[in-house]
Amino acid sequence: MANKVEEFNTYRAKMNEKILADNNKIIKRIFNLDTNAFMAGALDVKTKELLGLVASAVLRCDDCVKYHLESSKEHGASKEEVMETLGIATLIGGTIVIPHLRRAYEYWEELETEA
Amino acid sequence: MANKVEEFNTYRAKMNEKILADNNKIIKRIFNLDTNAFMAGALDVKTKELLGLVASAVLRCDDCVKYHLESSKEHGASKEEVMETLGIATLIGGTIVIPHLRRAYEYWEELETEA
Amino acid sequence: MANKVEEFNTYRAKMNEKILADNNKIIKRIFNLDTNAFMAGALDVKTKELLGLVASAVLRCDDCVKYHLESSKEHGASKEEVMETLGIATLIGGTIVIPHLRRAYEYWEELETEA
Amino acid sequence: MANKVEEFNTYRAKMNEKILADNNKIIKRIFNLDTNAFMAGALDVKTKELLGLVASAVLRCDDCVKYHLESSKEHGASKEEVMETLGIATLIGGTIVIPHLRRAYEYWEELETEA
Amino acid sequence: MANKVEEFNTYRAKMNEKILADNNKIIKRIFNLDTNAFMAGALDVKTKELLGLVASAVLRCDDCVKYHLESSKEHGASKEEVMETLGIATLIGGTIVIPHLRRAYEYWEELETEA
Amino acid sequence: MANKVEEFNTYRAKMNEKILADNNKIIKRIFNLDTNAFMAGALDVKTKELLGLVASAVLRCDDCVKYHLESSKEHGASKEEVMETLGIATLIGGTIVIPHLRRAYEYWEELETEA
Repeated sequence: MANKVEEFNTYRAKMNEKILADNNKIIKRIFNLDTNAFMAGALDVKTKELLGLVASAVLRCDDCVKYHLESSKEHGASKEEVMETLGIATLIGGTIVIPHLRRAYEYWEELETEA
Repeated sequence: MANKVEEFNTYRAKMNEKILADNNKIIKRIFNLDTNAFMAGALDVKTKELLGLVASAVLRCDDCVKYHLESSKEHGASKEEVMETLGIATLIGGTIVIPHLRRAYEYWEELETEA
Repeated sequence: MANKVEEFNTYRAKMNEKILADNNKIIKRIFNLDTNAFMAGALDVKTKELLGLVASAVLRCDDCVKYHLESSKEHGASKEEVMETLGIATLIGGTIVIPHLRRAYEYWEELETEA
Repeated sequence: MANKVEEFNTYRAKMNEKILADNNKIIKRIFNLDTNAFMAGALDVKTKELLGLVASAVLRCDDCVKYHLESSKEHGASKEEVMETLGIATLIGGTIVIPHLRRAYEYWEELETEA
Repeated sequence: MANKVEEFNTYRAKMNEKILADNNKIIKRIFNLDTNAFMAGALDVKTKELLGLVASAVLRCDDCVKYHLESSKEHGASKEEVMETLGIATLIGGTIVIPHLRRAYEYWEELETEA
Repeated sequence: MANKVEEFNTYRAKMNEKILADNNKIIKRIFNLDTNAFMAGALDVKTKELLGLVASAVLRCDDCVKYHLESSKEHGASKEEVMETLGIATLIGGTIVIPHLRRAYEYWEELETEA
């Protein structure tokens, strides 16, 4: 069982629904763009998800990291690819990324136990 | 009942008291400035609180967001004004602001149930 | 004469035009959103521009600060209102905002000599 | 008893071990560098730990702050030295550092009850 | 002729040489890691360079963006791939990334005239 | 001769004077605090300046780095101490600090030719 994954996704979905129901045009469009930006284009989806992951990690956004870990996995990223991505994040973003790396690692483990 | 609001305010008040009792001049003065900066001047208090809110949101400081949500509400900001402010924050600060937007939205709901 | 204002606006316009001509949908839409987010809504344009200014200042983006200084002025913000906004930015964002405050002050002076 | 200190250290140790067992060279070397950078050199260890503390505080990394609070204490930093360091952090980094200052203060108290 | 590219690379090389000659072990090793992290592994070099580019862009480091633009190009990244990467950076990092996007676009043009 | 040092200090002094003449209370007090925070206390001035330097470097504020390099030198910091401080900054803040490290190194050289 993977409580943390489920818990995160449930809260995320519930709040997104409320925010979108609220009809703020700017926010709705940003959510919409977010879906579009990660669709296949010149770059494939997996690569885009890894781009999202490294950006989330250097900006130290745990929830964004979780989201892109899950999507990366769904689109075929291996653990090695994810760890190389997080290694680059830690080098570029510095050791302050390490606490987020720990939580990312833990979340990845939960994603794996889920399968 | 609004546990999260109360819990946040209690912890905040308790720790601020301890820190100020400690007599570090620099920290005391910064706390003092913080009170002064949000008083009415060329700009009214509500506008200043929204400035504090957008700055807190783009800097992704959940506790600061909570604090300014509460003060904004106390000084008459409507939900629409707060959401437009958070929409600007999400546009300027990017999608990494979204997890903080979720928590802000949730906290605003709790503030409303309190009234 | 206000060379710096003109120089900034010319470069900005030239590069924006090139980037938009390039037909990257995500970037085009973000530019488009940027225009929409600062239109009058629950909050008036001047307030929104000051929100944009304080967010730009705490994120220490000189070009964004310049842009919002100019728009704030166009929509009727006084020097006092702008300085209170930048004061809040310096308090929330800390003394690392000061170098940007210097450049903001200088740019505001140039905007004033332009009128 | 100091549950929070122990809890933090246990989780940190457990996850670091897993990450290092994973054999990602870049990450292993960064962890290794982290140990080396805080050894005595031209500057003594206490000073280096305070440098680590102020950097962690302005970057608003709670776990990094906790780590350097503990090491600072172990290498002889007094509460006054730590508070002056955190005062500088709050001035340079701004009032958004304050929520982290609260948690740092609380953690320091727990470290003191431990002794 | 591409003066800006040459100018950037010359200054970068000159200062790196001085810094490395100075024999600070931590800094030398970080420079060394930087070379290693972008070598082919589970991910190919082009993908890693795009990861470096998106991380640099969201962290708003113009010099880092320039460096990774040049390496991305050398390892076969097309303009479309680079622009999609920068689009993701602008979405995740927000409109404060736009001034860096302008300079990135300009630098890419200079890299293309160089070929 | 050291043009860059002089140029920086002249601009800084000129703009600070203008800003302070403007009589914005919050900004005046923050400037005032800035002077007080770096006076000798539990920590000596040199240590405080190195704290200011590392904080400025991880926050990637070139002007703040220049200022603290100059004050560190005036209060007796050696090149080795400054480089160890910047090494810690680069480790904690990541490789995005490197462009600022280059400019810091160059500025230190200019400070040394001045003596």
